[in-house]
Amino acid sequence: MATLERTEEVYTIPNTMKAVLKAERKPGLTLVENHPTPRPGHGEVLVKVTAGSICGTDLHIYKWDDWAQKRLHPPFVVGHEITGRVVALGESVERVKVGDYVSLESHVICNSCHFCRTGRGHLCENTKIIGVDRDGGFADYIAIPAQNAWVNAENTPLRIAVIEENLGNAVHTVMAQDVSSKFVLVTGCGPVGLMAINVAKAAGARAVIATDISPYRLAMAREMGATRTINPLNESVRDIALEMTDHEGVDVLLEMSGAPSAINDGFAALREGGEVALLGLAPGLLNFDLNAHIIFKGAIVRGIVGRRLWETWYQVHGLLQAGVLSLESLVTHEFAMTDFEKAYHTFMSGESGKIMLVP
Amino acid sequence: MATLERTEEVYTIPNTMKAVLKAERKPGLTLVENHPTPRPGHGEVLVKVTAGSICGTDLHIYKWDDWAQKRLHPPFVVGHEITGRVVALGESVERVKVGDYVSLESHVICNSCHFCRTGRGHLCENTKIIGVDRDGGFADYIAIPAQNAWVNAENTPLRIAVIEENLGNAVHTVMAQDVSSKFVLVTGCGPVGLMAINVAKAAGARAVIATDISPYRLAMAREMGATRTINPLNESVRDIALEMTDHEGVDVLLEMSGAPSAINDGFAALREGGEVALLGLAPGLLNFDLNAHIIFKGAIVRGIVGRRLWETWYQVHGLLQAGVLSLESLVTHEFAMTDFEKAYHTFMSGESGKIMLVP
Amino acid sequence: MATLERTEEVYTIPNTMKAVLKAERKPGLTLVENHPTPRPGHGEVLVKVTAGSICGTDLHIYKWDDWAQKRLHPPFVVGHEITGRVVALGESVERVKVGDYVSLESHVICNSCHFCRTGRGHLCENTKIIGVDRDGGFADYIAIPAQNAWVNAENTPLRIAVIEENLGNAVHTVMAQDVSSKFVLVTGCGPVGLMAINVAKAAGARAVIATDISPYRLAMAREMGATRTINPLNESVRDIALEMTDHEGVDVLLEMSGAPSAINDGFAALREGGEVALLGLAPGLLNFDLNAHIIFKGAIVRGIVGRRLWETWYQVHGLLQAGVLSLESLVTHEFAMTDFEKAYHTFMSGESGKIMLVP
Amino acid sequence: MATLERTEEVYTIPNTMKAVLKAERKPGLTLVENHPTPRPGHGEVLVKVTAGSICGTDLHIYKWDDWAQKRLHPPFVVGHEITGRVVALGESVERVKVGDYVSLESHVICNSCHFCRTGRGHLCENTKIIGVDRDGGFADYIAIPAQNAWVNAENTPLRIAVIEENLGNAVHTVMAQDVSSKFVLVTGCGPVGLMAINVAKAAGARAVIATDISPYRLAMAREMGATRTINPLNESVRDIALEMTDHEGVDVLLEMSGAPSAINDGFAALREGGEVALLGLAPGLLNFDLNAHIIFKGAIVRGIVGRRLWETWYQVHGLLQAGVLSLESLVTHEFAMTDFEKAYHTFMSGESGKIMLVP
Repeated sequence: MATLERTEEVYTIPNTMKAVLKAERKPGLTLVENHPTPRPGHGEVLVKVTAGSICGTDLHIYKWDDWAQKRLHPPFVVGHEITGRVVALGESVERVKVGDYVSLESHVICNSCHFCRTGRGHLCENTKIIGVDRDGGFADYIAIPAQNAWVNAENTPLRIAVIEENLGNAVHTVMAQDVSSKFVLVTGCGPVGLMAINVAKAAGARAVIATDISPYRLAMAREMGATRTINPLNESVRDIALEMTDHEGVDVLLEMSGAPSAINDGFAALREGGEVALLGLAPGLLNFDLNAHIIFKGAIVRGIVGRRLWETWYQVHGLLQAGVLSLESLVTHEFAMTDFEKAYHTFMSGESGKIMLVP
Repeated sequence: MATLERTEEVYTIPNTMKAVLKAERKPGLTLVENHPTPRPGHGEVLVKVTAGSICGTDLHIYKWDDWAQKRLHPPFVVGHEITGRVVALGESVERVKVGDYVSLESHVICNSCHFCRTGRGHLCENTKIIGVDRDGGFADYIAIPAQNAWVNAENTPLRIAVIEENLGNAVHTVMAQDVSSKFVLVTGCGPVGLMAINVAKAAGARAVIATDISPYRLAMAREMGATRTINPLNESVRDIALEMTDHEGVDVLLEMSGAPSAINDGFAALREGGEVALLGLAPGLLNFDLNAHIIFKGAIVRGIVGRRLWETWYQVHGLLQAGVLSLESLVTHEFAMTDFEKAYHTFMSGESGKIMLVP
Repeated sequence: MATLERTEEVYTIPNTMKAVLKAERKPGLTLVENHPTPRPGHGEVLVKVTAGSICGTDLHIYKWDDWAQKRLHPPFVVGHEITGRVVALGESVERVKVGDYVSLESHVICNSCHFCRTGRGHLCENTKIIGVDRDGGFADYIAIPAQNAWVNAENTPLRIAVIEENLGNAVHTVMAQDVSSKFVLVTGCGPVGLMAINVAKAAGARAVIATDISPYRLAMAREMGATRTINPLNESVRDIALEMTDHEGVDVLLEMSGAPSAINDGFAALREGGEVALLGLAPGLLNFDLNAHIIFKGAIVRGIVGRRLWETWYQVHGLLQAGVLSLESLVTHEFAMTDFEKAYHTFMSGESGKIMLVP
Repeated sequence: MATLERTEEVYTIPNTMKAVLKAERKPGLTLVENHPTPRPGHGEVLVKVTAGSICGTDLHIYKWDDWAQKRLHPPFVVGHEITGRVVALGESVERVKVGDYVSLESHVICNSCHFCRTGRGHLCENTKIIGVDRDGGFADYIAIPAQNAWVNAENTPLRIAVIEENLGNAVHTVMAQDVSSKFVLVTGCGPVGLMAINVAKAAGARAVIATDISPYRLAMAREMGATRTINPLNESVRDIALEMTDHEGVDVLLEMSGAPSAINDGFAALREGGEVALLGLAPGLLNFDLNAHIIFKGAIVRGIVGRRLWETWYQVHGLLQAGVLSLESLVTHEFAMTDFEKAYHTFMSGESGKIMLVP
């Protein structure tokens, strides 16, 4: 049993720990009470987990769908949206210190491919994702490369720190183009869409129009600051967007749903010369009108992957410290990690914001 | 005497009008009660002035300094920050209608030089400035090219419309680089600096630090939303900026003063890789450290001229309609145009915000 | 009959002229010998046509396809790629002079919509296209707005001036992203694709890979400077691109064909973080993989419309004057305008470069 | 004595080596025949030096001027423009292999500061420069971090590989803005200026105007592809630039001299809206006209430091492999390393291009 000191604190690290595992090649997850506690390797830190939150990817893992069957190699610990305290350092770690309050970046990148070497680590060709390709953090402890530990200001609320990685997706998407003084349309009000609404408002958007087919999510969108919400089952996204924009269309489309109808609605509501950031993954091939949606419009369309490493984290940090975001109500539920089944099912119901798991 | 109808309104345009003139090649201005009312030429509109505001340039004209003596050709009507109603159209005017509530762009551009033809009309090589090179609007009426009449939303407060052209300088300066989530330093809290503070906050700046040597202006800076104000006579701009930024320096410098000490302070407080927008005009040659201030820092420095025509006006409009600015308190005084002497002297005292003149 | 003098030249303008008309709502075109010569209106110039060239759009007009039936209102003179001499000026024309050697921009824009007023005239919402929405230039004379007359240097070869508008499409596409030191893939070697190859090489591309299914066009591609040509009927575009790029894919895709297979091949050969300019129009809805092609790749995709007005023309002019293009062999055929039927059929055969018509 | 094999090659690494040292705190350098051969540490590689070249910084070190006295801590091996073969690897090196033909990046960066973590390693706040802050490569061997070893294609000529780091300065400067189709002015034809001329031409500049007061260097500028050379002692830079650009001024200024008169000439020749990249270091404070040179012009000015790590190296590689540069004649002299005194004095004469030293 190792012991580490920091000012008055002493971290006692047990040899085994509680962990939620993808244990077998079939649906479901398993809570294990005596999983071996990881040791931080060269350049790594050990983080005592304070909380995690559930992401859409976690549902694919739970359900063992096609993607999961092809990608995953059980057994491994799940969970990649994690916050905690650094309790031990491996060799050659300098930037991060024991006691630091951290949120984790889930993409472990190689630092040596063309992308990593040109400031585009989010496209690293050797990326490993925690909770997917290596052990995650729905557990008491997680060991990760020091560079993946983002040190938070001590005043960061836990309910922000736990979703900070996911917030990075929203900030990356919003900041991919200028939104100040612009009309912004957010199609899809899942958690990342909801955060994007709040970020776009904080960056001075003229108005944020948000669409979803769930009244629950549309209500949350309004709470996040959406100027106008639209349920496309009841109203025409394009008609309302044109009406609000003097018949010109929105300046910016942030596509967060992946739903084919939302994608088409979004592009149809886009003005000539507009900009689009695509984050939501479509279910498959789309019947897409390249001429009308991109070419004739002279549109600029950007695919969004993860977070810019580490520029997005600095932006997130700046926005949080500026106090211009209001995201705490986004975490609607909290469960003990041992109640993970209940937590996952609540998330699957669609009637929740982010859900926090506490070890 | 011409008569124009619009819904229920009838505009009756008198043949002569009240106007403040630079009448002679010497200091001072002259109020003339029976100046000929201008007629709108081809492509021009006639605007009935509701209000004007005084700008620094107007002081140079009043004082008849070196610049004024070289540039000006009296007699002409002064005043270039103007709002009013369109009351008559010249030939071939289409976009603007009689009755429109407009603010005026002061730069009359040629539309046919290289700059105008490549979206950079603010650099037009044939620019004529109203109230400087051609008759201005401290008068009952002004005739200007239709393209210089920016049509306001009817809900625009008069105290915003009257300073909208000047607000454009601030928006152009702030929007010349991305400020969202960034530390911004504004050196100089004259009216444009004050507006820049408010705009940078609205665009999601992490913090806005503002400097001036006038306690009056620093108090206004705080009212506009400055996170921290500094009087460089009492405190070190660089030290405070470094302290606030974890010893890295500010991300963005908006130089609005032209004061050599402020310019040097501002660059000294800038981080490596920082961005600078220069609006304030220096009094002459500077002793400038190109190595330390720009080269070693890998800084990007942009000179700011006027407003981007007409992109900046669209941005101003968007920010106003978004309701994210709070600028009405910026107009601290209002005078009848006939009291222009008192108005000019109040402005010269330095203890005012913008000053509005009403015909 | 008007007469105009310029140094020693005298322009005598007849009252009627030769013109190729879309005379009726059915396939084909009609040569008319005594069409009224147009008069330049306010702000317009009259151009004596030296030569025109045939564009893909001209074939749609000839064939009277769906697009043509919906868009066109015969009778009108066809032809929009035109060069000639200015022989008369309407009122208020300043920038252009009688005697100027001009090439014509085919898009007549309004100068007053949001797009025109923000440097994006190529997206003007009131665009009229010459030879489509108003009389074109397959005729002895054409009257057009002065701003549409681009004044060439006198040393510009006729075979360049006649295709200069079309060259602008290529320059706009290539310059939409940085290509210096990059791997560039051009899918589709029609005339614009061929010019894009030449422009990309002139801008310092590391290599230009070009694809087409026509051996004739692939031979022209090599003449234009393509590093490697690929016939996708025989070889895999993706495999060759990966092999040439150390398995990373091309940096830039210029899609000039509109062919669904070429679009998919092009995106499949694109590296992560790559950039795409789309000019070719697809025949209809595409089965498109938004996830693989744009999102996961973090790609940036830009729709390209016409030419940036007038920035692209300045770029074209700069490249021509630099002497870095070698495009004269692109005009493979020349016909008298009276032989327009033969010219159109040669162009339809696919075994030609650009085809020049001389009045 | 260690031995390493690669295909048929065997690297035998002696325990001592030849090295040029800054041995003492006084002018001059010392050749040492039995300096200890360095061993590659963790993450480092050992390079057998094939050649080095002399840079301006090396002259400061030789002369022991103010800068040198403040910055340097003798004894250390000098030389930072180096090419050679990797002959041994330290622990944890993956990207680079024994036998690789490499050129060295001279800036050893920390990978963990804000700049390194946001794709701006050239601004790393913990940079150590080889041959300045740590042992350099005017020696038989040098040990450096693996990330500083850029692997060349085997077809790279030695006379290119040896100046590749310095070529990176030129490429960084030229690529800091778009030069295709633009008028480019290069003030200062030292080696980096000369390379910038060649790179700007390769990237499709409309014309490159080059200035220097040395007829020798102006002749080299013409060899590198300058369209027009100007000796400001004899001719007016501004007058010629205006004459060549239809009285508009150059689009881009690349300032490579640091000479106050050249800086002023350069800015005076710049058009409105022009862009400036500043690489040359001024001798001290400048009397600089911020109004005329930057503000009224609406200019964009960028400070250039080193090379973008590692984006610039990829660009250099791309341009070299494209075959669009012609730089071999830039190395005008070659000396044995033992003749370093003669080499340094030749470089100081000003009548040379780059000078190569061979161990």
